Amino acid sequence: MKLARYLPILEWGRGYGGVTLTNDLVAAAIVTIMLIPQSLAYAMLAGLPPEIGLYASILPIIAYALFGTSRALAVGPVAVISLMTLTAASAIAPPGSPDFIAAALILAFLSGLILIVMGVLRLGFLANLLSHPVVSGFITASGIIIATSQLKSVLGIKASGEAMPELVRTLVEHAKDTNPYTLAIGLVSTGFLFWVRKGLKPLLIGFGMAARPADLAAKAGPIVAVALSILAVIAFDLEAKGVKVVGDIPQSLPPFTVPVFDPELWQRLVVPALLLSIIGFVESVSVAQTLAAKKRQRIVPDQELIGLGAANVAAAFSGGYPVTGGFARSVVNFDAGAETPAAGAFTAIGILLAALFLTPLLASLPIATLAGTIIVAVLSLVDFKTPRAIWRYSKPDFMAMAATIAVTLLVGVEPGVIAGVGLSLALFLWRASRPHAAIVGRVPETEHFRNVKRHKVFTDPRILTIRIDESLTYLNARWLEEFVLEQVSEHADLRHLILMCSAINGVDASALESIEAINHRLADGGIKLHLSEVKGPVMDALEKSHLLDDLSGKVWLSQNEAFQSLIRSSDAEDNAPLSPDNMGPRGMI
Amino acid sequence: MKLARYLPILEWGRGYGGVTLTNDLVAAAIVTIMLIPQSLAYAMLAGLPPEIGLYASILPIIAYALFGTSRALAVGPVAVISLMTLTAASAIAPPGSPDFIAAALILAFLSGLILIVMGVLRLGFLANLLSHPVVSGFITASGIIIATSQLKSVLGIKASGEAMPELVRTLVEHAKDTNPYTLAIGLVSTGFLFWVRKGLKPLLIGFGMAARPADLAAKAGPIVAVALSILAVIAFDLEAKGVKVVGDIPQSLPPFTVPVFDPELWQRLVVPALLLSIIGFVESVSVAQTLAAKKRQRIVPDQELIGLGAANVAAAFSGGYPVTGGFARSVVNFDAGAETPAAGAFTAIGILLAALFLTPLLASLPIATLAGTIIVAVLSLVDFKTPRAIWRYSKPDFMAMAATIAVTLLVGVEPGVIAGVGLSLALFLWRASRPHAAIVGRVPETEHFRNVKRHKVFTDPRILTIRIDESLTYLNARWLEEFVLEQVSEHADLRHLILMCSAINGVDASALESIEAINHRLADGGIKLHLSEVKGPVMDALEKSHLLDDLSGKVWLSQNEAFQSLIRSSDAEDNAPLSPDNMGPRGMI
Repeated sequence: MKLARYLPILEWGRGYGGVTLTNDLVAAAIVTIMLIPQSLAYAMLAGLPPEIGLYASILPIIAYALFGTSRALAVGPVAVISLMTLTAASAIAPPGSPDFIAAALILAFLSGLILIVMGVLRLGFLANLLSHPVVSGFITASGIIIATSQLKSVLGIKASGEAMPELVRTLVEHAKDTNPYTLAIGLVSTGFLFWVRKGLKPLLIGFGMAARPADLAAKAGPIVAVALSILAVIAFDLEAKGVKVVGDIPQSLPPFTVPVFDPELWQRLVVPALLLSIIGFVESVSVAQTLAAKKRQRIVPDQELIGLGAANVAAAFSGGYPVTGGFARSVVNFDAGAETPAAGAFTAIGILLAALFLTPLLASLPIATLAGTIIVAVLSLVDFKTPRAIWRYSKPDFMAMAATIAVTLLVGVEPGVIAGVGLSLALFLWRASRPHAAIVGRVPETEHFRNVKRHKVFTDPRILTIRIDESLTYLNARWLEEFVLEQVSEHADLRHLILMCSAINGVDASALESIEAINHRLADGGIKLHLSEVKGPVMDALEKSHLLDDLSGKVWLSQNEAFQSLIRSSDAEDNAPLSPDNMGPRGMI
Repeated sequence: MKLARYLPILEWGRGYGGVTLTNDLVAAAIVTIMLIPQSLAYAMLAGLPPEIGLYASILPIIAYALFGTSRALAVGPVAVISLMTLTAASAIAPPGSPDFIAAALILAFLSGLILIVMGVLRLGFLANLLSHPVVSGFITASGIIIATSQLKSVLGIKASGEAMPELVRTLVEHAKDTNPYTLAIGLVSTGFLFWVRKGLKPLLIGFGMAARPADLAAKAGPIVAVALSILAVIAFDLEAKGVKVVGDIPQSLPPFTVPVFDPELWQRLVVPALLLSIIGFVESVSVAQTLAAKKRQRIVPDQELIGLGAANVAAAFSGGYPVTGGFARSVVNFDAGAETPAAGAFTAIGILLAALFLTPLLASLPIATLAGTIIVAVLSLVDFKTPRAIWRYSKPDFMAMAATIAVTLLVGVEPGVIAGVGLSLALFLWRASRPHAAIVGRVPETEHFRNVKRHKVFTDPRILTIRIDESLTYLNARWLEEFVLEQVSEHADLRHLILMCSAINGVDASALESIEAINHRLADGGIKLHLSEVKGPVMDALEKSHLLDDLSGKVWLSQNEAFQSLIRSSDAEDNAPLSPDNMGPRGMI
């Protein structure tokens, strides 16, 4: 049982074969065809030789198949993680250099370690710090940066920069060097890929093909674009006319590589590795959950950390670079009928065969075509609907998203993520520090108590009821003290204050201290503090403290009972006969 | 109106005079007597010449009187802030050196700026990050460090270190150099001060004195200790026998000083300045609120930031060092009858006169006596009852406190605060990321729905109701998805899932996205999602989203209505007559 938790293969591997095997093989064939150009393109985007993209699609898939919990997730190089790898490794060495490739290996290794440690320590909850608006904004901004950066390959010019200002400046600066043949190939293949994506499926369906095969056929578009543009380069000798091509790719198994151990280098790469691990994890889990839900399967996020961690460690030891679960390939895998992670293993074999036998065919592949596949893929990440929906729904969430987009575009991917996480947290703390609270009164003829500002309700100047609509924690404990004391200072005749606790799900030690302080301060001013409608678990906790012993008033089960009883006892005090003990100003009336 | 918000003096200053003036003058005289030895002692603790303690008790008090909102708070040097100043400035230069004194001025100035900026931008809520257990643990640990560090002056030896290991090591190393005369003075004055604190008041009351004057007389103990030990030093020529004394203190007005502007130095001091500002603010506000509540007055925390900021800026320009509102002196001020901040201004005049005329008398004051006043004062900060109460009440809160105490004692004050804040936040996020939730069922014969694990309730295999006892935010959005999908995967016959929202006070954009994802995923699996008992403000927000349009089920006002209706409609489906559209396995029964 325990072992199966860490090795999900023990569960699905039992009784594997037959129809499941066939389905997995078909899915693997389709995904392999899709992955070959994509792996080359993303490696190029990451500033790495193209074969590294293939290597990163072999062992990592197998490692995930052993340890991951999703049955359809396809792991490998993805666009956003490739961009983050480029950014992080560029800080160490120029893209493409041996030190750069070594840095990419270290990133994969660190990223794998971080994910495995988080998985073993069950720290997956830390990924929560990346709110939906921040992730969504980050991916949109990354998509824009990636698409812009690929324009250089479509134009056949040089350009560099990790953020928009530098990218745009260098693109404009070199625009005069545009190579017309490269531009022609780039425009035609990008246009073709857009059409394949949007127009081919309806056309095939129009010709009478069923929806699913039509969809899968459209997914083969990139391989067609690759084949046609290779033929064009060879037929018209475009390489001699300045069209850049992929060039010789070694025909080889993934090499066995060991990440260099250099503490100073590791230290410089650990924060980027952390950021790309968490971004990769969040995206991957979201894809895996969406697919699992369609078949009422479950994925286990803490185990996913281990699966993705293993995949990255595998990448580090097999000449790859950081990988994660990709959206497009996983959906294709699922739609093509993959039933178990074995489909992933078969895909790995397919790509291995490509690395061994197909690479000579790819030497004349124009880089502009790969840029086209990247542009078409990442523009689907750019999402302007979500910002509008979030703007309508919540201004603070929109602010966090806008800050993430702006900082990512203008400064870079790592500052973008950090700014988004920081701002989200600050806004959360700000909101948590001033919860909603209402002075409530009794709705006439009922036992219900409602906000005095929204309803016509009955109140008594001697009794004030405050309903707090939030759990009490250290973040709002001081607010609570200030709010209660402010209300009390505005009610001169007050004798009883009731805290109505119906919406309070917890009270931490700081809030307990604040309630005790309020109790003592009110007692100094001659006012009794009462609690009403305290939930069971909260009451259980309070019984472990001194509060209930020291409370100047009482704990009431129902707010109505508290209110009615305190009115009666206040009336009784006001009408008490004169006695030497009862000669205050009130007694004299 | 607006101006009075920033200058509270405009409010209480109107109609000042008469009885109020007399009361303020009496309080000021008592506080002045108490403050003279304390100011010298805390300056010494901070590694500064004693006169700087006096200077820090003059202009800052006046600045606070102009801008602060508390009527009884007494501002000046305090023990914990003095320790933090020592630690921060020691990183720049050796204690007592001109560069060290300059660093203390810069700390006061930066601290003043930080507080004022926080006040103007209403950022006081950031102080919430310091939870009660963290502050309490930090002050206890600081008290232990301070008391230990003063042992060197009681023994007449050298010792150094900002944390316990180094302090204890150097104390033991130099213990052999103990000066017996210094030790005698140190022990006698410390013993006398302890007795004054604990034993004098009961004795005076025993002699028939009223409680309040007896209490105030006991507060004059330190000045008696100071006077007697000066006489002892002179009478027995103890200075020649190696007893260290305060020495010549210049007779002077506070000097006009300007903090050096050195960006590199400021950068090194800004984090310590931030930490000591916030610690000082938290302590000061808590004292001010306690005293204000006794007279049903109010203090305004954001304006307190400005008041304390102004006091620190004043300290920076008048030869002082960082200050804040002190607990002991404020209580004495309040008990002595201070009614307005004018009492503070009169205290300032008293200390000014002391700086001008009394300092020659203090030249022979033994440092061991000052160390005694510090030890007696700070041991009252050391609190072992709170850790025990917090241990009983909440283990995570205790962990945060224990970490703060341990790191402060073993590593230092700044790492201690940072560790405490970091751990509190991590624990908060961890708790927020997995809120309490229950599967609920209907209590028979009622309309109430309770946890199926705690009560005997009625449920239906086709309908699952989940009650979430927490607001939904980005911190628990992913947990929500996982929890709901896990529950669904365990209920094979499910057709309807109801989210009971009675305890949900808010839904942010991330949580909204998660509910939408749950809705779609459940729909893929043929399950309808319903919401029940959605609160008004939450419903208002949801109406701005697409959720309600896309929801596969309905929004129900009451949980009971939802449950009953869905049972009826499920029964109707199960018993529907056979028809070509209704020939599933269920229809065939």
